[in-house]
Amino acid sequence: MSEKILLELKELLEAAIAGDDESREELIDRLDNYLKAEDFEAIRDFFTSVHPADTAQILESYEPEKAWAFVKHLDVETQVKIFNYLDVKFETRIASIMDRWTLTVIMGAMSHDERADLFKELPEEHRSEILSALTQTERDDISKLASYPEGTAGAVMTSDFCALKPDMTSEEALEKLRREAPDKETIYQCYVTDNQGNLIGVVSLRELVMASPRGVVKDIMNHDPIYGRATDTSEDVADIMAKYDLMAVPIINGDDKLVGIVTFDDVHDIIEEEATEDFHRMGSIGGYGESLAGNGYLEASPWVLIQKRLPWLIALVFVNLLSSAGIAYYESTIEAVVALVFFLPLLIAGGGNAGAQSATLMVRALATADIKTKDWILLFGREIIIATILGLSMAMAISLIGVFRSGIEVALVVSMTMMAVVIFGSLVGCLLPFLLDRFKLDPATASAPLITSIADVGGIIIYFSIATWFLQTHAVV
Amino acid sequence: MSEKILLELKELLEAAIAGDDESREELIDRLDNYLKAEDFEAIRDFFTSVHPADTAQILESYEPEKAWAFVKHLDVETQVKIFNYLDVKFETRIASIMDRWTLTVIMGAMSHDERADLFKELPEEHRSEILSALTQTERDDISKLASYPEGTAGAVMTSDFCALKPDMTSEEALEKLRREAPDKETIYQCYVTDNQGNLIGVVSLRELVMASPRGVVKDIMNHDPIYGRATDTSEDVADIMAKYDLMAVPIINGDDKLVGIVTFDDVHDIIEEEATEDFHRMGSIGGYGESLAGNGYLEASPWVLIQKRLPWLIALVFVNLLSSAGIAYYESTIEAVVALVFFLPLLIAGGGNAGAQSATLMVRALATADIKTKDWILLFGREIIIATILGLSMAMAISLIGVFRSGIEVALVVSMTMMAVVIFGSLVGCLLPFLLDRFKLDPATASAPLITSIADVGGIIIYFSIATWFLQTHAVV
Repeated sequence: MSEKILLELKELLEAAIAGDDESREELIDRLDNYLKAEDFEAIRDFFTSVHPADTAQILESYEPEKAWAFVKHLDVETQVKIFNYLDVKFETRIASIMDRWTLTVIMGAMSHDERADLFKELPEEHRSEILSALTQTERDDISKLASYPEGTAGAVMTSDFCALKPDMTSEEALEKLRREAPDKETIYQCYVTDNQGNLIGVVSLRELVMASPRGVVKDIMNHDPIYGRATDTSEDVADIMAKYDLMAVPIINGDDKLVGIVTFDDVHDIIEEEATEDFHRMGSIGGYGESLAGNGYLEASPWVLIQKRLPWLIALVFVNLLSSAGIAYYESTIEAVVALVFFLPLLIAGGGNAGAQSATLMVRALATADIKTKDWILLFGREIIIATILGLSMAMAISLIGVFRSGIEVALVVSMTMMAVVIFGSLVGCLLPFLLDRFKLDPATASAPLITSIADVGGIIIYFSIATWFLQTHAVV
Repeated sequence: MSEKILLELKELLEAAIAGDDESREELIDRLDNYLKAEDFEAIRDFFTSVHPADTAQILESYEPEKAWAFVKHLDVETQVKIFNYLDVKFETRIASIMDRWTLTVIMGAMSHDERADLFKELPEEHRSEILSALTQTERDDISKLASYPEGTAGAVMTSDFCALKPDMTSEEALEKLRREAPDKETIYQCYVTDNQGNLIGVVSLRELVMASPRGVVKDIMNHDPIYGRATDTSEDVADIMAKYDLMAVPIINGDDKLVGIVTFDDVHDIIEEEATEDFHRMGSIGGYGESLAGNGYLEASPWVLIQKRLPWLIALVFVNLLSSAGIAYYESTIEAVVALVFFLPLLIAGGGNAGAQSATLMVRALATADIKTKDWILLFGREIIIATILGLSMAMAISLIGVFRSGIEVALVVSMTMMAVVIFGSLVGCLLPFLLDRFKLDPATASAPLITSIADVGGIIIYFSIATWFLQTHAVV
């Protein structure tokens, strides 16, 4: 392929990555033509000169069969790099097409955490075939990494870390790193273990490079390394990494042995996944089954989504049934003053929306910040002030509509109600997530639709109580 | 301080960090006693032997005056480390207490991005005092970093990166790194610039260590470095970092000059902040003014929160006014069959909740995944299938309540309505975020309360249309 054409293709790639769909289509077509013309030289030229992360992104536009038709003409080293960046679902589909031998070679060279993730997705029959073709060490490594449950530090960690011994000199340590570097996830943080494999220190490449070559590792290492446990949630480890500004967190198992590291490049996915789960729960979408983060939602089957959505919708029907019961109870008031129904949507939505706002603020604050009991008294006090001011403002707004529509009496009832429902909704929205959190339940279960429904029930009861009382007292009913 | 007491205090600290409020109180009291007894030796012993990130967390439990009373007895190096971990708001409050001279010394040694963040928060009169006490280079650096607007890569980047020249040997490069390391944010990625300061390559410490000492940098560097622009959003840069698994992204300005780097330790905050903003918008909390991520919500004044919440609440009143208008229009139907009001909350909540679910899924998918037009046709088709099944299930559930409560005719009306409103709500929830995204608006503006309100309006119109038509046809009205 000529330099000029390569440059053209690279420009198309750049535009495609930046989000230009036309360039993407053109690039896909042109690469496709090389494949049809069996110009494998051109395919190799292109795919070896662009970043494997970009290659992965472009390949995912094709069907897996076509993607593999490109990749199989590349050298193993490039194949491995691309596999390290492919989405695991897509990777699994490619893996099911290629021959066992090639897959084994690629998996032997992949980074250990990506490899274990791929392994977990393979169908049972492929797994045993692959395992039997790998070395004993690789086999043990994969089984170990694949054994930790989803969402734990064990499930995201990698075992290709650099381990040093305490009595090596810096020179020996650097020599070992030079030798092992190509196979390690990072050589910038090295972990020092004793003969039992227990973590006793950490030393950075920076410290090794700056230390005197004859000095021993145990004299320059940090003896108090920060670590996580394989059974911790991946989010806890991401938080540790953020708090201490670490590039990698060593992970120990139940016997205090060093078993892996979680590196900075996992943080992005961990936090996004956690935020997505909270987001979904807040929108009343069930938490069980597979996570819908990243491309999960795009690929989820209708059946999975129905399973996640229907239970909540049905449960909320029962909560709203209480609203209906409230209406039934006050049916005589409604029959007497049908005009009251006019304001019903305004009032219950007002309370529900104020509640959804408080709940959203509270749930997110509980998820990201460290709220202590004394903070909470403050928060609750502040919410009362805010709710009162919001309630007053909303009451003024609706009183105008009330006067205009149904006269001064209804306007009075309606604005008193608005004030009360906004305060009621806000306090429920503020309190419920907090109580759930205190009882060690997920605060995001106090989702916006749940808070809205509870506020609705309260709103209806408040509305018709005030209306019945006021209109009776003033002899309207 | 004896080893034993130090160990006790460290154990208290560990428990406090893990979330035990009692240990925190005890630790705070004991440290307080050292201060009262003027045992500064003990204070120094404790604070120099624990991680500065932990120190920062404990100090934030005190009032700023007390926190400074501890910190002022420590050496400058420890002070600087602690300042690098303190929350910027808290730091600003301490900075306003301490004398200008000490503040200038600490700011001179802080990491460049943390320093610029602190500078931005200082009151105007302190700023000029500080600037005049710093060197010209520091002054220029702070002004430059502080000049980028909130939310851009420029505002989170740091200027203390390692720059190399292309014709240095690896040996010379390593020597330079050794010399400069203590002042640099990272030495693991080094950026190669030409004489004009343009970024022409990147080389990792790993590559430098592994290369032959006589080889020149330009032969081992990557000539095609991945970079961001100072005006890009910080989230774009975090995404680049995640996609290419980078530890740091070099940032260039409008003239293509290398001006800073964004490092991996900024990613956590960037993603959490972005997720919080989306979360809040999804709960109808306005986006203007300061962000409420992290401890922002805890510290926000009631007035800020009211400003963020009230406009949405008022705007939604107007949307819900349409619901009321719908009710007014069908007042005669309601007067004839007041029993219909019983089902009103159930039906409109059903549609609203289904809509909130779709919107939540869609907003989050748009924020985290790369949705292309062809995906969207698929998503929309799938949503129709899902909505139909959800609608049918909900219709069956409510028809039982309908038969039990008001006989077969009302049950028929009610289940037809439920089916229609769930489909209507789901499609609105799915379409609106997508349309906002297409028109380059923030999809999260299609918040759950907005979708719920729109679904309410649609639900009321659908309900009473079906009821009027059906009950008229069947001569009930």
